[in-house]
Amino acid sequence: MDKQAARERFLNTFSQLVEELKDILVGYNMPQEAVDWFEASLNYNTPGGKLNRGLSVIDTYCILNGTTATELDDAKYKKVALLGWCIELLQAYFLVADDMMDQSKTRRGQPCWYLKEGVGNIAINDSFMLEGAIYVLLKKHFRQDSYYVDLLDLFHEVTFQTELGQLLDLVTADEEVVDLSKFSLQKHSFIVIFKTAYYSFYLPVALAMYMSGINSDEDLKQVRDILIPLGEYFQIQDDYLDCFGTPEQIGKIGTDIKDNKCSWVVNQALLKATPEQRKLLDENYGRKDDASEAKCKQLFQEMGIDKIYENYEEDIVVKLRQKIDQVDESRGLKKEVLTAFLNKVYKRSK
Amino acid sequence: MDKQAARERFLNTFSQLVEELKDILVGYNMPQEAVDWFEASLNYNTPGGKLNRGLSVIDTYCILNGTTATELDDAKYKKVALLGWCIELLQAYFLVADDMMDQSKTRRGQPCWYLKEGVGNIAINDSFMLEGAIYVLLKKHFRQDSYYVDLLDLFHEVTFQTELGQLLDLVTADEEVVDLSKFSLQKHSFIVIFKTAYYSFYLPVALAMYMSGINSDEDLKQVRDILIPLGEYFQIQDDYLDCFGTPEQIGKIGTDIKDNKCSWVVNQALLKATPEQRKLLDENYGRKDDASEAKCKQLFQEMGIDKIYENYEEDIVVKLRQKIDQVDESRGLKKEVLTAFLNKVYKRSK
Repeated sequence: MDKQAARERFLNTFSQLVEELKDILVGYNMPQEAVDWFEASLNYNTPGGKLNRGLSVIDTYCILNGTTATELDDAKYKKVALLGWCIELLQAYFLVADDMMDQSKTRRGQPCWYLKEGVGNIAINDSFMLEGAIYVLLKKHFRQDSYYVDLLDLFHEVTFQTELGQLLDLVTADEEVVDLSKFSLQKHSFIVIFKTAYYSFYLPVALAMYMSGINSDEDLKQVRDILIPLGEYFQIQDDYLDCFGTPEQIGKIGTDIKDNKCSWVVNQALLKATPEQRKLLDENYGRKDDASEAKCKQLFQEMGIDKIYENYEEDIVVKLRQKIDQVDESRGLKKEVLTAFLNKVYKRSK
Repeated sequence: MDKQAARERFLNTFSQLVEELKDILVGYNMPQEAVDWFEASLNYNTPGGKLNRGLSVIDTYCILNGTTATELDDAKYKKVALLGWCIELLQAYFLVADDMMDQSKTRRGQPCWYLKEGVGNIAINDSFMLEGAIYVLLKKHFRQDSYYVDLLDLFHEVTFQTELGQLLDLVTADEEVVDLSKFSLQKHSFIVIFKTAYYSFYLPVALAMYMSGINSDEDLKQVRDILIPLGEYFQIQDDYLDCFGTPEQIGKIGTDIKDNKCSWVVNQALLKATPEQRKLLDENYGRKDDASEAKCKQLFQEMGIDKIYENYEEDIVVKLRQKIDQVDESRGLKKEVLTAFLNKVYKRSK
């Protein structure tokens, strides 16, 4: 099955899940206008992205079970895809809220949900309900499975970890008060691992493992020890591209400098800045004007941050390949799961 | 033990739980400023209310087990109290968010959390973390218990139900556009049952039942069938007092009329209003000025809504007493649990 067909089959499952969720509200005798509202929120906020996280649950499940998505019967496919959609719902929950907290204007090329006519702060409750939908669906489809409680624990843990990352990000990068002394590579590492790596890299694989009966602490640790640094590498690459990638290359205009982001790039610069260079950063980083941004970019280039990134990338990829090579497959885990993730990240341009 | 001592012991448990939560963040190597932030949010938002919901878990547990809080050893007390604090955390999660959605100014006599210096929209993530704390604590203290998964399902279900009630409330009572044709007693009933009754009345009892091993579907249904209408009665009483109670009596100044609330009072009035009375309501309900509010209050009095309330109250109390009388105690459930709740609500003035 080609990528487009795989995506369409996955999206088709989402339509079914929306109907199931609506049926549950109708079963509670909820008035129609509120059912319609929830449906609109689900459809506006959940699909529409790249769906990488959700689709990777299916890919991982297929690798672990030596099969392909086409070979899965409809019931089995739906159950695996449902776990993928639970990650997408989790992400929707975070993004609806993040956009409010960051006062963002657009998301995936359309207005942020909270900016839609008539929504406003109701979006906070809508974000809660996107999270709530995860547990409604898990209960309906997995309550009888032995690993149901493991799925719940996993979603709770990863959700809380993501919130911890978001909290540190919010208290570190205040858009109003620029204070570079708050930044550090340690904080950057915590933020990206907690805010991104756990739910984007570890969660899809762990879900597919539970459903495949590969659920020993050792195996979960094996994948975590590779996917967390891989997720960190992915975000460092993202930070690098935001500053050094061209808009054509990355499909958007980077705004990390203007947004006072605690990015890997500025943290590397802070690490080796002379007092003069530090002064230039203090005066120009996090300002909203193009001239200040250009000065920062020029400094990053002069300081060779792009070269430091290239070295980092070569180094981390070698280390990750070595770790993957050492993975113990004796209980059913497959190195290929991890290689597939690494290959999606390495040398991507957007 | 007197009420004040019971409250102090309960609050002391909360201090211990805050330390446990902080330890978990420290264990993740979270930077100190973010740990401090979370601690501040927990302490600002969780205690400080009447703690009725949390304390009633302990009261219910004691009744079901024929004991008193004083007789519980420290370990057992802490475990029961922890469930009570999970309800208070759930409420904190809702209230932090509700205050943002309603643009409220104060809560429990102090500024709303989101209005505190430096907090603002970060409060959205703080509300998420208050909810997250529930599952961190449940996992730490109940993972080994047979009913752990039941506790998770119960919290998920009640959380989602509360969000459904909040959604209907938000889409029904728009503060900007007053449209009384959106109101109905059916919607009022749905809103108060879902937004208040499940988490305030059913949840504390169900938690204490699970911990006492009284967990059959029949017994859960028996208490639900009484506590949900009791919770509805509690909220109808609240609506009544908001309009007809004096500030001395209820300890606050009612604002439901000005806030365009889908209150039981206005719904009763809409039910029997003549065209002239309806016109007066259309023109004055939900307006922010004192004169409009006074006109509505006068109309409600002329229409005898207070008398309708008194009849409703006598009627529902008789019905609830009859239902309690018919409760089957053969599997260990005690009528006294339900009587205790009813007695707290009946003829209260605030």
